[in-house]
Amino acid sequence: MKTIRVVIVGGGIRGRIFARTTQDHAGAEIAAICEPNPQRALELAAEFGAPVVDGIDDAIARGIEADAAVIATPDVAHRAPALAAIAAGWDILVEKPLAATSEDASMILEVARANGRRVVVGFENRWNPLFASVRSQLQNDGHRVISQRALLQDTVFVPTEMLRWAASSSPAWFLMPHSLDMAVWLSGARPIEVFARGVKRLLPSLGIDTYDRVSASFAMSDGSILDLDSGWVQPLGKPSVFEFRFEIETEGDAYVLDIDDTGARRTSAQSTRAFAPSDTDHRGRPQGAPVEMMRDFLDAEAGEDLDLPDGEQGVLITRAIEAVHRSLATGTVEPIPS
Amino acid sequence: MKTIRVVIVGGGIRGRIFARTTQDHAGAEIAAICEPNPQRALELAAEFGAPVVDGIDDAIARGIEADAAVIATPDVAHRAPALAAIAAGWDILVEKPLAATSEDASMILEVARANGRRVVVGFENRWNPLFASVRSQLQNDGHRVISQRALLQDTVFVPTEMLRWAASSSPAWFLMPHSLDMAVWLSGARPIEVFARGVKRLLPSLGIDTYDRVSASFAMSDGSILDLDSGWVQPLGKPSVFEFRFEIETEGDAYVLDIDDTGARRTSAQSTRAFAPSDTDHRGRPQGAPVEMMRDFLDAEAGEDLDLPDGEQGVLITRAIEAVHRSLATGTVEPIPS
Amino acid sequence: MKTIRVVIVGGGIRGRIFARTTQDHAGAEIAAICEPNPQRALELAAEFGAPVVDGIDDAIARGIEADAAVIATPDVAHRAPALAAIAAGWDILVEKPLAATSEDASMILEVARANGRRVVVGFENRWNPLFASVRSQLQNDGHRVISQRALLQDTVFVPTEMLRWAASSSPAWFLMPHSLDMAVWLSGARPIEVFARGVKRLLPSLGIDTYDRVSASFAMSDGSILDLDSGWVQPLGKPSVFEFRFEIETEGDAYVLDIDDTGARRTSAQSTRAFAPSDTDHRGRPQGAPVEMMRDFLDAEAGEDLDLPDGEQGVLITRAIEAVHRSLATGTVEPIPS
Amino acid sequence: MKTIRVVIVGGGIRGRIFARTTQDHAGAEIAAICEPNPQRALELAAEFGAPVVDGIDDAIARGIEADAAVIATPDVAHRAPALAAIAAGWDILVEKPLAATSEDASMILEVARANGRRVVVGFENRWNPLFASVRSQLQNDGHRVISQRALLQDTVFVPTEMLRWAASSSPAWFLMPHSLDMAVWLSGARPIEVFARGVKRLLPSLGIDTYDRVSASFAMSDGSILDLDSGWVQPLGKPSVFEFRFEIETEGDAYVLDIDDTGARRTSAQSTRAFAPSDTDHRGRPQGAPVEMMRDFLDAEAGEDLDLPDGEQGVLITRAIEAVHRSLATGTVEPIPS
Repeated sequence: MKTIRVVIVGGGIRGRIFARTTQDHAGAEIAAICEPNPQRALELAAEFGAPVVDGIDDAIARGIEADAAVIATPDVAHRAPALAAIAAGWDILVEKPLAATSEDASMILEVARANGRRVVVGFENRWNPLFASVRSQLQNDGHRVISQRALLQDTVFVPTEMLRWAASSSPAWFLMPHSLDMAVWLSGARPIEVFARGVKRLLPSLGIDTYDRVSASFAMSDGSILDLDSGWVQPLGKPSVFEFRFEIETEGDAYVLDIDDTGARRTSAQSTRAFAPSDTDHRGRPQGAPVEMMRDFLDAEAGEDLDLPDGEQGVLITRAIEAVHRSLATGTVEPIPS
Repeated sequence: MKTIRVVIVGGGIRGRIFARTTQDHAGAEIAAICEPNPQRALELAAEFGAPVVDGIDDAIARGIEADAAVIATPDVAHRAPALAAIAAGWDILVEKPLAATSEDASMILEVARANGRRVVVGFENRWNPLFASVRSQLQNDGHRVISQRALLQDTVFVPTEMLRWAASSSPAWFLMPHSLDMAVWLSGARPIEVFARGVKRLLPSLGIDTYDRVSASFAMSDGSILDLDSGWVQPLGKPSVFEFRFEIETEGDAYVLDIDDTGARRTSAQSTRAFAPSDTDHRGRPQGAPVEMMRDFLDAEAGEDLDLPDGEQGVLITRAIEAVHRSLATGTVEPIPS
Repeated sequence: MKTIRVVIVGGGIRGRIFARTTQDHAGAEIAAICEPNPQRALELAAEFGAPVVDGIDDAIARGIEADAAVIATPDVAHRAPALAAIAAGWDILVEKPLAATSEDASMILEVARANGRRVVVGFENRWNPLFASVRSQLQNDGHRVISQRALLQDTVFVPTEMLRWAASSSPAWFLMPHSLDMAVWLSGARPIEVFARGVKRLLPSLGIDTYDRVSASFAMSDGSILDLDSGWVQPLGKPSVFEFRFEIETEGDAYVLDIDDTGARRTSAQSTRAFAPSDTDHRGRPQGAPVEMMRDFLDAEAGEDLDLPDGEQGVLITRAIEAVHRSLATGTVEPIPS
Repeated sequence: MKTIRVVIVGGGIRGRIFARTTQDHAGAEIAAICEPNPQRALELAAEFGAPVVDGIDDAIARGIEADAAVIATPDVAHRAPALAAIAAGWDILVEKPLAATSEDASMILEVARANGRRVVVGFENRWNPLFASVRSQLQNDGHRVISQRALLQDTVFVPTEMLRWAASSSPAWFLMPHSLDMAVWLSGARPIEVFARGVKRLLPSLGIDTYDRVSASFAMSDGSILDLDSGWVQPLGKPSVFEFRFEIETEGDAYVLDIDDTGARRTSAQSTRAFAPSDTDHRGRPQGAPVEMMRDFLDAEAGEDLDLPDGEQGVLITRAIEAVHRSLATGTVEPIPS
């Protein structure tokens, strides 16, 4: 069986997870890592023993050959490497959202189609076995959905310390693609219009000009309603960096998932923190939803027939989040183009 | 000290709590109970040893003298007894919402003012010591509110078995006055506009023509946002009949209250149920938020200077819930008149 | 109706709760507060406007007349004031445990009986409405108890900062009277023998020579088993100072109570803390289990017929905790004298 | 790479999980399944397409060749197939407890040693990533353990419906090997003596002569204490069939794990149930702790150097559980031979 050669674009937290997973996969190897930051480039080269280059053009110039690329750059910087990878003849796994504008997202999808390349979008929660179980239960019980709602929020650590590019993003761009994709995937319905509100208060006062919090009310194609609430200014003393609560109500059942609640807490003299197994430490092998997603992408590259979130879904979600921001700007209900 | 004589209008679950509290109060007594249902009237007479009459007119015709009335009739039937009680020279405690239309609510308030009568509206959650504690903490810490959100929902037991008049109400009329009053009371801000969505699916199929669920997004006068979500079709297997989760996010802190979570559960061979002390069984004395509210109303009648939710607040909340339904009908953002 | 005059012995946290409750009670007044610490005495005098004296002898010497005394001194200092109060002809409410040895406890009970004085022991959890509800449910359902277990633990704040006398106490003396009394009160069975283990590790290293933790396994008179686990070295970052989980298993049902879980949390930049309403701030009146207990004691003094934990129960619990420490010393099962 | 051929002994719930995992493993295959029940044998043959025979002797008689066997028979029936497998030259994975007496356990270990065969005991919780994370945190922080306690209990479904052989087992034999192995694995300390209590009440009344519940208090070799509590008569309405709560207290930290709490609940008209992903349905591949354990066993068979729970550990745990039952019989503290 042919070894799948992968270019990892972006050597941040996420890029490293994907590099580690590629390295661990029996049928794949890292062709190159693209990371323009010189210090980080040195560290990546040491850690993975793979060529580290500035970007895809540089990789190609150096004659690196590959089958696929993973685009793990900041949200606003997906388009260029995605198009470059497709032009190089590679399939792509792109982090959510597919792009920061629906025009960019559509272009990536169209160019990929024209070139016969696979586009997978990193909606990793589909690999959370609890969500997968809910989807299967919903399909089995056959009840119609009445409503869905999701609270997905981060502590202020994320926009102030973890991301350098928070000001060019928002809670809607950074968090809602997860909850919205899940609502669509679970219910099989599409969002058709949205009304949103937001608050800019704490982050602007810290010099980061974006929303603290956004709430969005969607009408779905099946007549159900979906409320998404996301923010990233929760105080640092929260038990975990993120909080993800998802609820579905059907004509017969109600499902509640507290995704951040692992049932495991450690208390020190200072605080109580929830913990989850890290992405890379269980008996020496990487694990977790993004790892499983990457494995399936690699298996699909190797020829397996797998159901993966595709570029069309990526365009839909990008359009919906764009409509959220339009509604924030206009103060009215905005349609979501299909 | 003069004994406060109270007419209880409506002998249902709530009326009985207020009657029981009056009976237990050292400075008050039941003047009469108004209950048109003959069977229930007999039971009330036996239980409370007080005159049971059809309505306020009947009470007056029979020469019953009183200082105050409690209006615990269905929501759509508040106006007539409220006005009759005021005309009789009585102060009134009215169950939330003050009335089923803002015109009715305003008229009750105006007539009461013209007659110098006290109007208290039954926003009983203000007597929940946890909410009271949050209010005090918020006032002490001085941080500005960024957002509030509340999930208040009932099982389908409430509209199908507990209330005979669910079709003339909705999750917004029946539940949101509680969560909206709390958001206003805690933050000190007023709702200025609202966008709402609703679903009619399960209850109409059961012959009850009203909403299963309503979600509402409010802009508040202090620039914060408020999301309220209420429904009453949760499946019967829930640990409790209601679920009330309230969250507040400020510039410095986050508060989460799971009001229905008492920390106490009983599991039988069938299911696990949360339990709370009942309203009347703790060492033989009634207790709980509605009981404390009624006690304060009686103490205020006796001359104590207490901070109680007044008719103006009742009108505001009625107007806001009316705007929720307007938004459900128009599909657009609706202003909330002040 | 005669006003009940109360001497509060001990002006610490607990003494102040009882003083405040007495002051708030319509039929009671503080006759004197006994507090030998001069600084604290000044503060108490200013706060309560009552005479503050060194001790009961001093109170009597100054001609103070009273009906009842509350003994809220450290555990090892209950005997002297209890006997002095009885000698003065006063009824007593004594904090748990009744005394620090079963000889002292028995003597207090006997002298009180000989003098016809009421002894109430401060097992305040009987006033927690959730426990009261469980007792009532157990009595109604009629199933036999199979097992009970309780985890009652404090953070290290309690022995290192809150109590000056931790070294003369232990988790068994300070905490288990609560959980053991509750097990006895709920089940109606008595403990007949006990095996206990303990660890001395952290507190001795901090210069406080007592147990960090004690676990005790009781055989009950009805053939059921009871496991009590108590410690006071939990790290300071816990959401609350104490943790109290109680479980009962019968032939038909299972009850679980998380007493410390109020459903209310506040997160700051540092940590997440559970909160409960404070003892004195709800609409200006004291509240909570110790307050309700004190009220019932005062009402009983005024002639009401109430079911209160008496001296006999206090002796039983003292004997059982003494047996726990005997078992810790001998390493074997110890009988509990009845 | 050589394919590992595996004989699965016992075609019940567990045997099927191991068969399914073997089938899914790229380097392993099912050599035979041993299942004497004819109906079940037919179903297994159809499901796995592998030879199904009565027992190991039968397999050998039919010339089946293998490298390893998994012993998934009832607890009291481990010895014979374990010895037969070793005699056949196979390595073994044996379900916990290794055997139902310490003599049997020791003999299995000795015979395996004499024949140079690997013995792995199925302490599957070591493959739960949360426990693994705690172990790693404990090793990193270096604090000494003060106490551990575990509540591991099942609903009455397990002894009355799931197991045909409950009367020859007990909560101590069936459940405590899990919690005791975990306490030993996490702390690195050994149990040196135990005191236990039990209740026989409900199950005997249903014709199953064994304990409803057992609690055991262990002294550990490092001076810490360990309390284990296990029962299997919890009412059927519990959210899950099992409940597993594990707590560790060190000199600096406290860890709490609610293993049964997945954060996912489904409510129907009857009840609320927790759910976890099933063992076999995540994107078509088996998953979960027993699956991962079996995979590691297969990988070890294929030559990987893995840290697996061995026969010595199996003998230790068997001796400790035997001491629990001795203490139940004698009513005194029993030493645990090392």
